[in-house]
Amino acid sequence: MKSAHMVAAKQTLRIGLIGFGCVGQGLYDILEQRPETGFEVARIAVKNPTKPRSLPLSRFDFSADELLQDTTLDVLVEVIDDATEAFRLVSEALRQGRRVVTANKAMLARHLPELVQLQQESGGKLLYEAAVCGSIPIIRTLDAYFGEEPLRSVTGILNGSSNYVLTRMGEEGSDYAPALAEAQAKGFAETDPTLDMGAFDPRSKAVILAAHAYGTFLQPDEVLNLGIESINAVDIAFAAALGRKIKVVAGLQRLPDGRVTALVTPLLVAPSSPLYSVDHEFNGVLIEADFAGEQFLRGRGAGGHPTGSAVLADLAAIRQGYSYQYPKLTASPLTYATDLELEIYLRTDDDRLIDALDFSEISEEADEDGYVVGFVALSNLLRVKELIHKFGAFVVRTGVVRPLTSTTPALTQEVSL
Amino acid sequence: MKSAHMVAAKQTLRIGLIGFGCVGQGLYDILEQRPETGFEVARIAVKNPTKPRSLPLSRFDFSADELLQDTTLDVLVEVIDDATEAFRLVSEALRQGRRVVTANKAMLARHLPELVQLQQESGGKLLYEAAVCGSIPIIRTLDAYFGEEPLRSVTGILNGSSNYVLTRMGEEGSDYAPALAEAQAKGFAETDPTLDMGAFDPRSKAVILAAHAYGTFLQPDEVLNLGIESINAVDIAFAAALGRKIKVVAGLQRLPDGRVTALVTPLLVAPSSPLYSVDHEFNGVLIEADFAGEQFLRGRGAGGHPTGSAVLADLAAIRQGYSYQYPKLTASPLTYATDLELEIYLRTDDDRLIDALDFSEISEEADEDGYVVGFVALSNLLRVKELIHKFGAFVVRTGVVRPLTSTTPALTQEVSL
Repeated sequence: MKSAHMVAAKQTLRIGLIGFGCVGQGLYDILEQRPETGFEVARIAVKNPTKPRSLPLSRFDFSADELLQDTTLDVLVEVIDDATEAFRLVSEALRQGRRVVTANKAMLARHLPELVQLQQESGGKLLYEAAVCGSIPIIRTLDAYFGEEPLRSVTGILNGSSNYVLTRMGEEGSDYAPALAEAQAKGFAETDPTLDMGAFDPRSKAVILAAHAYGTFLQPDEVLNLGIESINAVDIAFAAALGRKIKVVAGLQRLPDGRVTALVTPLLVAPSSPLYSVDHEFNGVLIEADFAGEQFLRGRGAGGHPTGSAVLADLAAIRQGYSYQYPKLTASPLTYATDLELEIYLRTDDDRLIDALDFSEISEEADEDGYVVGFVALSNLLRVKELIHKFGAFVVRTGVVRPLTSTTPALTQEVSL
Repeated sequence: MKSAHMVAAKQTLRIGLIGFGCVGQGLYDILEQRPETGFEVARIAVKNPTKPRSLPLSRFDFSADELLQDTTLDVLVEVIDDATEAFRLVSEALRQGRRVVTANKAMLARHLPELVQLQQESGGKLLYEAAVCGSIPIIRTLDAYFGEEPLRSVTGILNGSSNYVLTRMGEEGSDYAPALAEAQAKGFAETDPTLDMGAFDPRSKAVILAAHAYGTFLQPDEVLNLGIESINAVDIAFAAALGRKIKVVAGLQRLPDGRVTALVTPLLVAPSSPLYSVDHEFNGVLIEADFAGEQFLRGRGAGGHPTGSAVLADLAAIRQGYSYQYPKLTASPLTYATDLELEIYLRTDDDRLIDALDFSEISEEADEDGYVVGFVALSNLLRVKELIHKFGAFVVRTGVVRPLTSTTPALTQEVSL
């Protein structure tokens, strides 16, 4: 079995590791346990020289730029938090034609077009499986496996922290605050929970998936993200009465007219959906493909080892010469559609918010519980998003989406769950 | 986005299609609908010139060897039933250094070592994602994504036909015969159901998965496969009383001593397992990875379009220069272990069978329902397999596996569901 080809494939690669947080330590730990993988962490760059580390100080560099200049490094792995600094480092490395692995979803979501362009021009290679859904091989599945197949929808639970909170609230009937505290204690949520609980993190991931699934470059700000910071027992009870769970779901869906929607909001999920049983810190993605039909992937969406495992898979792929092809970009990218109406449940005690949302149709109004169910224009939700958060209101989609101001049910469709 | 690299990647490949059954027609249909994929079915070889076809007779060749000799064909797609003839064609094509895609699981299971060797020697390339779990990208996930990561277990429902029958029997309390007839009417089962219902088909798939997941070459005959031809309402009721479903599960599991087991039998599956909700013709695979943790993939396991979609994905992979690396083969293949005891439920009215199985321990004996629960040596099951079938007896595993003749629970372990 040891053909020349395979032995060559097993050359040891010298890794320059930029960042030594949860993911960086996870990768380091895995490679320490598995030296036979043939990846050596040659240098580690961190920012803060005084922060206590699990390795001797002598093991660290304190300038990432030194690693960029070290041409003896075969691959750079960027796993820092700062998206701006990450983009500076990754784009510079690509300009040098380097091979780079990153897990920085916020950086990717903001700069994907430039990063794809840079790979084209420089011959540099960038892989980022760890940036979306931790251990789930979703990017390569969309880019390589479904690269030639049109997709009806890609719908997923992409954030383990908020999913953990929602699961605990459903299980225990506990309130948001203690559930969040528990998630943070278990290390599933950041100390500043805004990115996770405000659905900014899953929005970044949805933007990345849209490029691979539909060839569509979205600006994060164009995409509606609604969080769960204001969720309470009334909302959980409303969902339970319908036999559904509230999950934060990122939905990309091809419309009958060939355009694509992107929505990252709480959604009422029915037991018939595979997403219904994706609980705690797990992530799950449902793909509806034109020929393959329904595909479902589920796995750990957080944690140093699961995410480090995804980085290891990217390192192995880079050694084999694998690179993303962005086949949908080269074929026919879908246009992003926002001229839609969404059916939502809105809980608020402030009529100004109901007025601001300008419901085109109200199907249910429960004054005692202080909620409204009806259709609103996506543009209105995008406009008053901050207001919803500021007023402590909570919004969950029912899953029904229809063309703006349309009253014909012809194009009405359920998010394919 | 149209860089030289990507344009080059989009050269049209001329395909020689050998076989025009369910999968061949499915692929042809997909490529007709998606000419932009850049794959052209240049020639189609079939065996029978008199059989009615969906295309004009002029479209067909009646000698596969003519396609083998046609060097203008970039890729050969082999999707015939006859495993012996398939091996002759595929191995000859590989000897020529050709690029080949096959869906023939029986042929692969019997000849994988030679086919891997042939690729090494000739530089020919063979991909076969469609051979296991239809549309689920399981082979590339094991070979490429988890190539560097040790796996605790790979457990799956790999046969859509038997799963459909079991689902219907559970839903309707219907008997085996009508459920099978329904599966056949829906095109989920072959006219000769032996391969599907006798668990020979999922055994072939388990043999293929073992090579990619553990680097272990198994001979199909070495692997225990027990079918569902004799299942009846008593068995379904026994499972239901335990709150479980009976599913035909192929289980590959790494033992604490580092060897690997392979069992393809009916299994009592608990609701806590993702496999519990894999119903009808769907397939599902659960991967327990040392670092990534639990991964679950679910999708359509049968049908011309889902399987054709997997062939299309292989064609795209071949165009990108992708090939299987068999990383676990080049690293440290696990040894196959059969010195085990399995806990089983056996329903039979024939004591000779109970004697022949030589239970080492009997935990339950229900004379009125005519079943026994206890531990038997795997070697005994392999030896009397045909007898179980001949006597119309039914066996389902509880999931407990332990070292041969051991009474210490130390190594006792549940199949990781």
